[in-house]
Amino acid sequence: MAYNLLKGKRGIIFGALNELSIAWKVAERAVEEGAEILLTNTPVSIRLGSINHLAERCGAIVVPADATSVEELEVLVDKALEYFGGKIDFVLHSVGMSPNVRKNIPYEVSNYANMMKTMDISAISFHKLLQVLYTKNAMAEYGSVVALSYLAAQRTVEGYNDMADAKAMLESIARSFGAIYGRKHKVRVNTVSQSPTMTTAGQGIAGLDKLFAMADDLSPLGNASADDCADYIVTLFSDLTRKVTMQNLYHDGGYSQMAITPSVLEAYGKGRE
Amino acid sequence: MAYNLLKGKRGIIFGALNELSIAWKVAERAVEEGAEILLTNTPVSIRLGSINHLAERCGAIVVPADATSVEELEVLVDKALEYFGGKIDFVLHSVGMSPNVRKNIPYEVSNYANMMKTMDISAISFHKLLQVLYTKNAMAEYGSVVALSYLAAQRTVEGYNDMADAKAMLESIARSFGAIYGRKHKVRVNTVSQSPTMTTAGQGIAGLDKLFAMADDLSPLGNASADDCADYIVTLFSDLTRKVTMQNLYHDGGYSQMAITPSVLEAYGKGRE
Amino acid sequence: MAYNLLKGKRGIIFGALNELSIAWKVAERAVEEGAEILLTNTPVSIRLGSINHLAERCGAIVVPADATSVEELEVLVDKALEYFGGKIDFVLHSVGMSPNVRKNIPYEVSNYANMMKTMDISAISFHKLLQVLYTKNAMAEYGSVVALSYLAAQRTVEGYNDMADAKAMLESIARSFGAIYGRKHKVRVNTVSQSPTMTTAGQGIAGLDKLFAMADDLSPLGNASADDCADYIVTLFSDLTRKVTMQNLYHDGGYSQMAITPSVLEAYGKGRE
Amino acid sequence: MAYNLLKGKRGIIFGALNELSIAWKVAERAVEEGAEILLTNTPVSIRLGSINHLAERCGAIVVPADATSVEELEVLVDKALEYFGGKIDFVLHSVGMSPNVRKNIPYEVSNYANMMKTMDISAISFHKLLQVLYTKNAMAEYGSVVALSYLAAQRTVEGYNDMADAKAMLESIARSFGAIYGRKHKVRVNTVSQSPTMTTAGQGIAGLDKLFAMADDLSPLGNASADDCADYIVTLFSDLTRKVTMQNLYHDGGYSQMAITPSVLEAYGKGRE
Repeated sequence: MAYNLLKGKRGIIFGALNELSIAWKVAERAVEEGAEILLTNTPVSIRLGSINHLAERCGAIVVPADATSVEELEVLVDKALEYFGGKIDFVLHSVGMSPNVRKNIPYEVSNYANMMKTMDISAISFHKLLQVLYTKNAMAEYGSVVALSYLAAQRTVEGYNDMADAKAMLESIARSFGAIYGRKHKVRVNTVSQSPTMTTAGQGIAGLDKLFAMADDLSPLGNASADDCADYIVTLFSDLTRKVTMQNLYHDGGYSQMAITPSVLEAYGKGRE
Repeated sequence: MAYNLLKGKRGIIFGALNELSIAWKVAERAVEEGAEILLTNTPVSIRLGSINHLAERCGAIVVPADATSVEELEVLVDKALEYFGGKIDFVLHSVGMSPNVRKNIPYEVSNYANMMKTMDISAISFHKLLQVLYTKNAMAEYGSVVALSYLAAQRTVEGYNDMADAKAMLESIARSFGAIYGRKHKVRVNTVSQSPTMTTAGQGIAGLDKLFAMADDLSPLGNASADDCADYIVTLFSDLTRKVTMQNLYHDGGYSQMAITPSVLEAYGKGRE
Repeated sequence: MAYNLLKGKRGIIFGALNELSIAWKVAERAVEEGAEILLTNTPVSIRLGSINHLAERCGAIVVPADATSVEELEVLVDKALEYFGGKIDFVLHSVGMSPNVRKNIPYEVSNYANMMKTMDISAISFHKLLQVLYTKNAMAEYGSVVALSYLAAQRTVEGYNDMADAKAMLESIARSFGAIYGRKHKVRVNTVSQSPTMTTAGQGIAGLDKLFAMADDLSPLGNASADDCADYIVTLFSDLTRKVTMQNLYHDGGYSQMAITPSVLEAYGKGRE
Repeated sequence: MAYNLLKGKRGIIFGALNELSIAWKVAERAVEEGAEILLTNTPVSIRLGSINHLAERCGAIVVPADATSVEELEVLVDKALEYFGGKIDFVLHSVGMSPNVRKNIPYEVSNYANMMKTMDISAISFHKLLQVLYTKNAMAEYGSVVALSYLAAQRTVEGYNDMADAKAMLESIARSFGAIYGRKHKVRVNTVSQSPTMTTAGQGIAGLDKLFAMADDLSPLGNASADDCADYIVTLFSDLTRKVTMQNLYHDGGYSQMAITPSVLEAYGKGRE
């Protein structure tokens, strides 16, 4: 069902790789809700994924950009302003990658060049994006910027590695920049802390299936899917949430607020023997 | 602007006194968004306020109920089920009162009969409401229950008195019952932690004008108004937020995530001399 | 090993039932560290437990008091001031009971007279204690008051029932009263959020053994024991923590900051099949 | 007063510049409590400050090390193991610097080479330190590692700049590494979130005097001093806190748990006019 919640709004979506991506779902839902969008991703992801197919379905254009490059972000934002013929109303940042995770380098024997890349790609890219938008005054008043995060920023998920530290930094950047951007131009900045999700990135994480299952069992409403997440983010892009900013918003079926439930204890007790 | 976000949905709104009330605004917005509603308040509040005027505007009925009485809540829910001809999709709990605050009894010399009343009215009433809804299986699947809270539940606002403890308990009840209600019937339970708001209740608090002004200055987007709050709560009643539960959601222009900003420090420095 | 950390200090310990009690361990450790103490508990607990044996070992007196009775608390504090010949340096509040839990009444069909008792015994008793101490100006400057809490105040432990709401309220009272008591008399008020502990109270909770085992496995340092807790509380009573107030301090081997660890996922996966 | 709390323990203290430094105070207090210590700082800080004077007073040696260099940390830890003739019991990480802050570059026009340096010096250095300690198995069982943090990691202090993001990352590293180090070798890792403190570093921050004054007024016990902090950290190094890990511990006179108090509102109201 569509409500025209984003009618007349224009936005940039980072990070749609393929139809499993949360960003993909957000793009589709934003368009269903009346928005005009511009898609972006790195050249490699554009090649590997099927973003051009999404662009067709959405009547959108694709502008390649490396989110760690200020220069490419500047070009991207300029193109968006030109393409839209006006300011930007919303942006989704769904960008993250850890070379340490990719190469199975455990956290306790980290490679620091890798860690720096994790931070640059997964956290500082968000600052760069915000800084470019801010400097160009590219966002409309009460525009909304959302980045995707994960509970590991607050509580340790062993194996999530330096991505936990990157997400903690990402959420801090949302607050730090949100304070400035809100005061100056009334732009909102929030993070959505999403359930573990079976995206291509997620599937690459060893043991995600087990993590996914346990989180699903522990969450009173079950895990939130990529489709659910797209619905939720649409509300954050809409005019109905204009005073929500600097928040980390859990979208997880209640998982973040749970310690334990008897059925999980029961199964754990069995498996432990 | 309306989006039909609540088309076909039916809900109960507690706590509309007059047109300053957050609950009043929520009632109006819910109806604008296509919902059918039932209004309730205590007999005294119905007499003192103008809820019948609201009911007319909203095409709603008013059913008096004391939220601390399980029996009256049972009658209320039965009437709602009958009136709607089906299950309830959303409920707003905007109920709170502290006899200690009313009588200017400081927190450090509390009257405990009063404190018990504060807890019963401002927190346990929410449990009673949820228990009656749950027992009667009165909520539709993915129905949404929202209670209004305030940051004093986390951080001390001296002068807010035992209402801080009541709000802490209220938020805990939302989690505790949310876990059970979510798992059993997929019903969501959340609290919204709203900026200080110039309602009739708010205006009764000594020094609220100063608190309001300082919060407004410190919040990057300024305080959220009752109208803003109604917009936000509409999203929480909608189908777009189905996996959000057991959360305390700050709706406050960013206040909760702020420590300090130079302009506030500056003014404080001057006033302090 | 003892350090004379509490040399010359005088304190009241609530809630020692028998040698499994955290309060029992705190009493012993406080005395080892040079403190003079006064023990208190309800008449029933004194009869059922072995507190008189503890008093002998500690060279302490026992003064019966129902912590929900302001009058009895007044008598208790007067006796303490007389017995010590001076102000009180520290107080431990280890008091909590839920008739709903005792009678196996699930949270979703709560009995509200019981719930009120849970709140009165487990949370408001702490306010009453603080109010009596404050009104009599019975605490020495930089005196320290500690109450025992549990993580269920933040995250739902299904089955912990209305004790979760009571602990949330207890922690709020620590903040609310701590602000006032600190500003006026430099008295500190904190809560310690302790691992599940195999006390007599704990053993009465159905399924605590399973909860205990899972928490032990998930905590990087394992669960904190009652002895560990006594060590920690001694530091909070000492002069070395004079600027720590209004905090909820997790003492749990790291559990509160954990989401998941591979070995727990592994066992859960097995047990789930 | 000294208690021999650290008798027989050996530790490394990072970051003592001069007698205003928190690390300086910690070094003095640790030695008073019976510890043997090794001091370290960068060659530049050793030259600019008076650490050699501290070393004399403490009967300690000084080993220069750049905390961003894994190689230098390895040499440092090797020297410590040799000097102590055994494993290390405690480590204080009091290291942080932001070139953006130093050069008065506002957060919204950050220089990213600077930001990377802020992260490397102020956050990743802590990971490097932990990794070197872990790899060499240099910490004794139940050893304790503490890093200094600040509330800006949770709530925005406009002007604190990218140090907020660095502190958020630092606290995340404490959790992430604490989980691993605790499980494997029972080593504790915590951060202490200290009041604004009038150290040389602090004095370099524009407007710190105003921030300091307002925090002092708002904190029920006033700001915690460097001396207070040293007392507190001694407890965290001691055997009495063995089950405390992965925590961020506020040491701030209650500031973190405060929203507002009437006297601050009053002064603000005046200054605002």
